[in-house]
Amino acid sequence: MTRDSRPISDSYAETTQIVLPNDTNTMNNLFGGRLLQWLDISSAISAHRHTKRVAVTVAVNHVSFDRAIKLGDLVTIKSHVSRAFGTSMEIWSDVWVEDPLTSDKIMANSAIYTFVAVDQEGHPVLVPEAIPTNPEEQRRYDGALRRRQLRLILSGKMKPSEATELKALFVE
Amino acid sequence: MTRDSRPISDSYAETTQIVLPNDTNTMNNLFGGRLLQWLDISSAISAHRHTKRVAVTVAVNHVSFDRAIKLGDLVTIKSHVSRAFGTSMEIWSDVWVEDPLTSDKIMANSAIYTFVAVDQEGHPVLVPEAIPTNPEEQRRYDGALRRRQLRLILSGKMKPSEATELKALFVE
Amino acid sequence: MTRDSRPISDSYAETTQIVLPNDTNTMNNLFGGRLLQWLDISSAISAHRHTKRVAVTVAVNHVSFDRAIKLGDLVTIKSHVSRAFGTSMEIWSDVWVEDPLTSDKIMANSAIYTFVAVDQEGHPVLVPEAIPTNPEEQRRYDGALRRRQLRLILSGKMKPSEATELKALFVE
Amino acid sequence: MTRDSRPISDSYAETTQIVLPNDTNTMNNLFGGRLLQWLDISSAISAHRHTKRVAVTVAVNHVSFDRAIKLGDLVTIKSHVSRAFGTSMEIWSDVWVEDPLTSDKIMANSAIYTFVAVDQEGHPVLVPEAIPTNPEEQRRYDGALRRRQLRLILSGKMKPSEATELKALFVE
Amino acid sequence: MTRDSRPISDSYAETTQIVLPNDTNTMNNLFGGRLLQWLDISSAISAHRHTKRVAVTVAVNHVSFDRAIKLGDLVTIKSHVSRAFGTSMEIWSDVWVEDPLTSDKIMANSAIYTFVAVDQEGHPVLVPEAIPTNPEEQRRYDGALRRRQLRLILSGKMKPSEATELKALFVE
Amino acid sequence: MTRDSRPISDSYAETTQIVLPNDTNTMNNLFGGRLLQWLDISSAISAHRHTKRVAVTVAVNHVSFDRAIKLGDLVTIKSHVSRAFGTSMEIWSDVWVEDPLTSDKIMANSAIYTFVAVDQEGHPVLVPEAIPTNPEEQRRYDGALRRRQLRLILSGKMKPSEATELKALFVE
Repeated sequence: MTRDSRPISDSYAETTQIVLPNDTNTMNNLFGGRLLQWLDISSAISAHRHTKRVAVTVAVNHVSFDRAIKLGDLVTIKSHVSRAFGTSMEIWSDVWVEDPLTSDKIMANSAIYTFVAVDQEGHPVLVPEAIPTNPEEQRRYDGALRRRQLRLILSGKMKPSEATELKALFVE
Repeated sequence: MTRDSRPISDSYAETTQIVLPNDTNTMNNLFGGRLLQWLDISSAISAHRHTKRVAVTVAVNHVSFDRAIKLGDLVTIKSHVSRAFGTSMEIWSDVWVEDPLTSDKIMANSAIYTFVAVDQEGHPVLVPEAIPTNPEEQRRYDGALRRRQLRLILSGKMKPSEATELKALFVE
Repeated sequence: MTRDSRPISDSYAETTQIVLPNDTNTMNNLFGGRLLQWLDISSAISAHRHTKRVAVTVAVNHVSFDRAIKLGDLVTIKSHVSRAFGTSMEIWSDVWVEDPLTSDKIMANSAIYTFVAVDQEGHPVLVPEAIPTNPEEQRRYDGALRRRQLRLILSGKMKPSEATELKALFVE
Repeated sequence: MTRDSRPISDSYAETTQIVLPNDTNTMNNLFGGRLLQWLDISSAISAHRHTKRVAVTVAVNHVSFDRAIKLGDLVTIKSHVSRAFGTSMEIWSDVWVEDPLTSDKIMANSAIYTFVAVDQEGHPVLVPEAIPTNPEEQRRYDGALRRRQLRLILSGKMKPSEATELKALFVE
Repeated sequence: MTRDSRPISDSYAETTQIVLPNDTNTMNNLFGGRLLQWLDISSAISAHRHTKRVAVTVAVNHVSFDRAIKLGDLVTIKSHVSRAFGTSMEIWSDVWVEDPLTSDKIMANSAIYTFVAVDQEGHPVLVPEAIPTNPEEQRRYDGALRRRQLRLILSGKMKPSEATELKALFVE
Repeated sequence: MTRDSRPISDSYAETTQIVLPNDTNTMNNLFGGRLLQWLDISSAISAHRHTKRVAVTVAVNHVSFDRAIKLGDLVTIKSHVSRAFGTSMEIWSDVWVEDPLTSDKIMANSAIYTFVAVDQEGHPVLVPEAIPTNPEEQRRYDGALRRRQLRLILSGKMKPSEATELKALFVE
């Protein structure tokens, strides 16, 4: 079976939320666990749009929370598939917080998740390749292989010595 | 001000949940976003126990979902601080799923989060050092420096060339 | 004080959700009350973007549920201010459901809410005028006056005889 | 098959809630989306009691939020079927807020929803006629036909020229 | 300060819910913890209506779950103060489940909670006496003293030998 | 079929939560209904561990709320089966609140629930006997028979004259 391909832009997903009291921690800021849940849903939507299948989380590779998000802030999450690998995909999400006076959006966090597409019985299926359509997507696509090696090392499924792409980063 | 230290075992946190319909995705398995939320709370408890302060999420370094967790399963999350760095701490959580017939617990996932302790105004404060008390804690403590360098590289706050600990992994 | 104006496109808000078991009724379809909640948040975001202020719901003018939305469906809500009237705004939202095989979006419902912008004490404040930027927006803008008269009649704040715009519709 | 009929009083539904922090917006008032959800459930109960069947939302005709409802307030929703039309019913709900010192109830909002009764496969079924049993119910029953025509015009399913009942309101 | 009194009927509270998937356990029945939460809110409303103050839970004396409540069932909770003791009140709630075909209500459970009224600082305040207005209320009023002694014994605040009312039950 | 037995320590369940704004009442304390829900889940886990079966709530025998639990507090619930009776079990839970400065845990409440184990069709099945393994467990085991008689009297399933164990408490 020949493997399909699809432009990364097909997987764009966007969602905006208002931070309500229900979403806050004891500092009156957005509770980290709630943001992780929103990121998971947004990533799942991108994975679904890329594969036209149910997609399930296999890993969170990295999420950074660079600034506190306050009660009442508008939070926009933009996700897209950044690269496909056989049955899995890396999904990249950017979190924007909107200035309540100017509506300027400031990038607050970014997140990298890995999903697999599954069939009705929950078995992984091959996903289409993801084709970058602009330099930003290309940059993320290029880094995805290294991040995948990192993830496999961190979960004990690859030895550092086998991670040739990643190794190059340090050895130049 | 001299910096305090505290054994890692002081930060142990344990929580058990039953997977209810409210927690599932469309495959009748535990929804990834819900588990990430439970992990965030459990990690925050460990960070609080280590520091006696409010602690907020600064990063998710890595979470792997190695097996689907089904509706009705008992899920136990065990967290502890694995190493402290100035104002931040790495928190390690293991996710166990309980066999409904034998009550044997099978390790299903593991998760690494980073938290900072904050004062009343939300400013980061120095945290006690974390002292390993057994070989497993020592092993995780030893790896934490490399994972911290990884996190800083991934969020663009460190150059690969400066990550001497991490580099050693790939180079010799 | 001169009244500001702003293009309607500044108020665009978009959000996508997956229908999870948590969101369903006993027919395994999206529960109506949950969709009304999502519509309220999306409308509030548009109102906020138009006014740069906190905005609160004053009425739901009309929501139609033309097709059942199923467990697992992707639901996208797109909202925008359609017209401003002194301190209030009409917000129009379209609900799209995504075909899981083709990702084609089918319009499933539409909703019309009214919001007011408020200051810190919760008192209504004047909002900018909303300027249509394309024929579709113009059409909705033109109908908003009639719908406003309808709303005021339905809530007993206007007599049918005073609703000159609306009357014209029936009398020609 | 002859069509059943049932007094409107059989469909009375009442529910009281306390506004908890979980239900509030950033102004510390009841969040509009939460009230819409409570109204949807209360309306569904009235529809169920009238038809002895599962009933699903087909439209929100009108909801007005005439006064802010505050954290800690007691909110009582009283719903009843106001008129039946073939497979659909108009449901009228009144929202009362209770004075915390005197327990006097003040009418805060009212809401009109449309529901259809469905069989096991989700297909609409004929519902019993709703018979008014007092002047207030009679008044709402009489207005329901005009509101139905409004709803059909707003959702593009009827031309204004065909709405003879509604037309009479404006032309006298 | 003379102590006020108030008829028990002033404290009546009623609430109806539909059991949605969100409320179920893995057997597709209403999850016990959710019912306990609904009972707590309904009891708090009765306590508030009796005292015109914020009221907080001090004990659950007894709840029996005599029949499973199924997904889609209509559940009605009716609460009232059954007796006042200084700063505390016993609240009695009956849980009715509605037959989906006949709308007959079957009593499924009953619950007894104890609440205290508090002032702004959270300190207990004297509550009005509760006056029974019919034989059923009288019967519950009469039993309340014995149940209070039971509760105090169970929480270690009274010795069995001091529980004269309760003792009479066993010694005749 | 001979009846199995199991040490009480096999049924230990522990869970820790942070009180978030989402969990509070209007006094900024943990809302009673939320704690009852957490207690129900923790009790169900103990019942499951004792029986290796799905277990459902049949009664809450007693819960005392002896101190307010505040926003931000760490709450730990420890549950265990205290005695088995045919198809039912008494489950005892202790609620500990953690001092945010010293991490000392103070016992805040205790709770006694009754569960039954059920088969796939929801029918009760015989559960293993529960064997106390220390003096504290023995003490709770010894009191369980009296509390069971209390529960049966309160729900009208036993006459006081038949409650021989309980009677002894008062008659000495």
